Amino acid sequence: MYNGAILIGASESRSADTFTAINPATGESGDVAFSNAGPADVAKATTLAAEAFQTFSTLSLEARATFIETVAANILAIKDDLVATAMAETALPKPRLEGETGRTVGQLRMFATEVRQGLWLDATIDPALPDRAPLPRADLRRVNVGLGPVAVFGASNFPLAFSVAGGDTAAAFAAGCPVVVKGHPAHPGTGELVARAIQQAVASCGLPEGVFSYLPGTTNELGGALVADPRIKAVGFTGSRGGGLALVKIASQRDEPIPVYAEMSSINPVVLLPGALAARAEALGPAFVGSLTMGAGQFCTNPGLVIAIDGPDLETFVASAAKALTAAQPAVMLTPGIHTSFERGVEELASHEAVTTVARGCVGEGVNQAVGALFTTEAAKFEADVALSHEVFGSSSILVRCKDIAEIKAVIANLEGQLTATIQSEASDNDAAAELLPALQAKVGRILFNGWPTGVEVTHAMVHGGPFPSTSDGRSTSVGTLAMARFLRPVCFQDTPDALLPAPLQAANPWGITRRVNGALEQAK
Amino acid sequence: MYNGAILIGASESRSADTFTAINPATGESGDVAFSNAGPADVAKATTLAAEAFQTFSTLSLEARATFIETVAANILAIKDDLVATAMAETALPKPRLEGETGRTVGQLRMFATEVRQGLWLDATIDPALPDRAPLPRADLRRVNVGLGPVAVFGASNFPLAFSVAGGDTAAAFAAGCPVVVKGHPAHPGTGELVARAIQQAVASCGLPEGVFSYLPGTTNELGGALVADPRIKAVGFTGSRGGGLALVKIASQRDEPIPVYAEMSSINPVVLLPGALAARAEALGPAFVGSLTMGAGQFCTNPGLVIAIDGPDLETFVASAAKALTAAQPAVMLTPGIHTSFERGVEELASHEAVTTVARGCVGEGVNQAVGALFTTEAAKFEADVALSHEVFGSSSILVRCKDIAEIKAVIANLEGQLTATIQSEASDNDAAAELLPALQAKVGRILFNGWPTGVEVTHAMVHGGPFPSTSDGRSTSVGTLAMARFLRPVCFQDTPDALLPAPLQAANPWGITRRVNGALEQAK
Repeated sequence: MYNGAILIGASESRSADTFTAINPATGESGDVAFSNAGPADVAKATTLAAEAFQTFSTLSLEARATFIETVAANILAIKDDLVATAMAETALPKPRLEGETGRTVGQLRMFATEVRQGLWLDATIDPALPDRAPLPRADLRRVNVGLGPVAVFGASNFPLAFSVAGGDTAAAFAAGCPVVVKGHPAHPGTGELVARAIQQAVASCGLPEGVFSYLPGTTNELGGALVADPRIKAVGFTGSRGGGLALVKIASQRDEPIPVYAEMSSINPVVLLPGALAARAEALGPAFVGSLTMGAGQFCTNPGLVIAIDGPDLETFVASAAKALTAAQPAVMLTPGIHTSFERGVEELASHEAVTTVARGCVGEGVNQAVGALFTTEAAKFEADVALSHEVFGSSSILVRCKDIAEIKAVIANLEGQLTATIQSEASDNDAAAELLPALQAKVGRILFNGWPTGVEVTHAMVHGGPFPSTSDGRSTSVGTLAMARFLRPVCFQDTPDALLPAPLQAANPWGITRRVNGALEQAK
Repeated sequence: MYNGAILIGASESRSADTFTAINPATGESGDVAFSNAGPADVAKATTLAAEAFQTFSTLSLEARATFIETVAANILAIKDDLVATAMAETALPKPRLEGETGRTVGQLRMFATEVRQGLWLDATIDPALPDRAPLPRADLRRVNVGLGPVAVFGASNFPLAFSVAGGDTAAAFAAGCPVVVKGHPAHPGTGELVARAIQQAVASCGLPEGVFSYLPGTTNELGGALVADPRIKAVGFTGSRGGGLALVKIASQRDEPIPVYAEMSSINPVVLLPGALAARAEALGPAFVGSLTMGAGQFCTNPGLVIAIDGPDLETFVASAAKALTAAQPAVMLTPGIHTSFERGVEELASHEAVTTVARGCVGEGVNQAVGALFTTEAAKFEADVALSHEVFGSSSILVRCKDIAEIKAVIANLEGQLTATIQSEASDNDAAAELLPALQAKVGRILFNGWPTGVEVTHAMVHGGPFPSTSDGRSTSVGTLAMARFLRPVCFQDTPDALLPAPLQAANPWGITRRVNGALEQAK
């Protein structure tokens, strides 16, 4: 199944410097020696990627879509091995990993469909105006092209959907960009299995081998070398704020700075409006705790902040949430390091003089287990210490009690950028919601009503992104078809002979795509 | 007409610290004392801008378009004063400034039309799937929203079209973003006239005063304070590489880093292919010199690099270009500083041991005059010293002689990012052009055939941008309707009550715009 190799293009190699996987449920190391890729591997992989770019980025839509679907099929074919390996490496439960496999396959297929539809090309044609006075206008045609080879850093918390063949890789492939993945050391077997599935798809589709390479490794140096490599033209990353900012810095100091799309940290405020509390405070408690503790709270959209107006209805919610949390079972976290950080973050909140502990979850027997935590404080105290708004990755949340809507608005206005904001409301809350919406919109990429932020649909309309520091680039999304846009740039062709134009811009429209001509959309049949 | 004031919102103020305009044709200072805006002015302007953002960004398409058209009308109404003032401040000739006024008005009107059409909203709706198994899908709706207040730095070389009401300001207004302009000190009277035209449009359209402010000034500190201000959310800049990179650095060091769209430097390679030289080497000479010396060469798209295969046809071109350049009249440059830099750059090339001077233009009597310069070198020597590929802003160009197409390709591959690349070719050159196109495409934002890079049309398909260092963000354009995209970001609304949705996403589609629903475009009637 997997042997710990470095996969560069069509070949595999090994390094004397190795590491092992750790089963977080037991703390034990696995048997396989995984190679730590080094600078020479980076150079080989990016050289191959740069060589593959021209061919891969000019494939027909059908050929590119077929390749992406082949990746999906190859992953589906090894689903059982993949889920078993990921379970041992991440301690995530089987149904979750089966679902995540489905999501990974589903998003690859969605990108294939999106590639075929061709709207992402944004093909735009302003025909020549030879008779215009005082000067004729040239023929101008614009199309989106891939940026070039993309470096992808997988996330620890989604070993499949945000990892080797996850959203970033799928979006980059869809945009015509070869991908070099820095494999996450927390799930190296899972990563290698997926990498081999991609490697086989590249081969069976007859593509240049450099379309994909996989560099496992534990060191920051490996990731830094990849981002600094001049052949890499963009970076996708999901992880910690420190990690993301380090990559942003490396990218900005290159001779040619490149975009880094880092999804970093978010506490995802949930506002409980008075009408909602009056109507269903009791029911909101366990629903909130369900979102908070799902997957040990290891989601970037985990609800780490609840904001509401003080009063009896809020007390009902607090009591209900406390009851649910007290009964919540502990869950093994992804890595010992993540568990240690979680424990430290919870301890800092628990011992903070401005904070009261509302409830903790059940304590278990095993290692690396997250015990859920709900804290509370007042708006003035929350605003007095920015540390209270820092993400504690895992099932920890803080309830901020406010006097009125104005105080809620002030709390929101002082927040950093977030991936999501949630409003629990009834129709009677619409005025209050309308008052808060502009402040929320300024801070987030997605606003949701009467749901919970965990669970991110992969669709055309999804935005999984948001203002800094939730991401390093708030103009983008890492989930949904719009994620392709991160790896594209526009190029204009002026008075170019038809035979030399890219297919999407040729007069005959050989790919049959929707184009904007003289300002008007001309839809594909 | 103008009095040297700082214009913040609806008010005007003055500073004790002043500067004067300099007539570059005479070197003389003007009479008006222009105020140097300071940090307190920045804070006032950005505070008003932040206050205006919510109202301005949620205007109806019609109201926003009308405002932009009012700005255009107000500029047209003062055209004669504007042209006279700009002539004195820039030494640019009257027809050029009349044309630039027309372009400025024209691009404002184009953005108004673009705003009304609403495609820029990218309204995307994935309706709920309540019956989906295993879990229902939420209703998801996405729309583009403005980033927030934008800081615009006008360019010295386009006192109208790339300045106070130029492309960046028009694009930001179109995107719903208030604008704070740092006025360029080389044309302060021109800038103030335009600023007053915008100020009046804000008032007559009943918009919040903070939609626009104008901060004249000579200091880097003023610009730095503006970019560092936390209320500013994006920056548009056209100018030098040093200036652009300084703003990028300030923006990246903020608590909340923001995008800087800096258009910086480009030498715009022109490739003369063998067929074109064989067919029309003689005619290409004066055509090239016309583009080189137009506006004293003070265009970001000035052809500063010519690449061709050595041989008798190239000698014909060189002789023809030399003859045309020798007869070319000198032209006053925009500022004494720009003239000094040009002279220094030309002198460095002329005295470079690897470079031969082909021809110089006529020398005139007055001050600050650019005397055109054409140099030549061989490919190997050009590649051996990166200094030879640095931009000399003004009418200076270097011809690089190559042995064959492969050497041309190598020269291109080693270039930094550029705004444009030009190919002079005949049908017989198509194979050679096809071989060069991928290398050129990787380096530039616009590729043009059988024309000259100067002269940038304002259309839907235009890209005036390119990989670093031609701009700081190669994913964008500063000319054409796509320029709006620089100041937008997507926001997703999930299960949001219809009444609380932004108009473009409401069920009834009250603005009647084109939307993408379930993946399919539903076009506006």
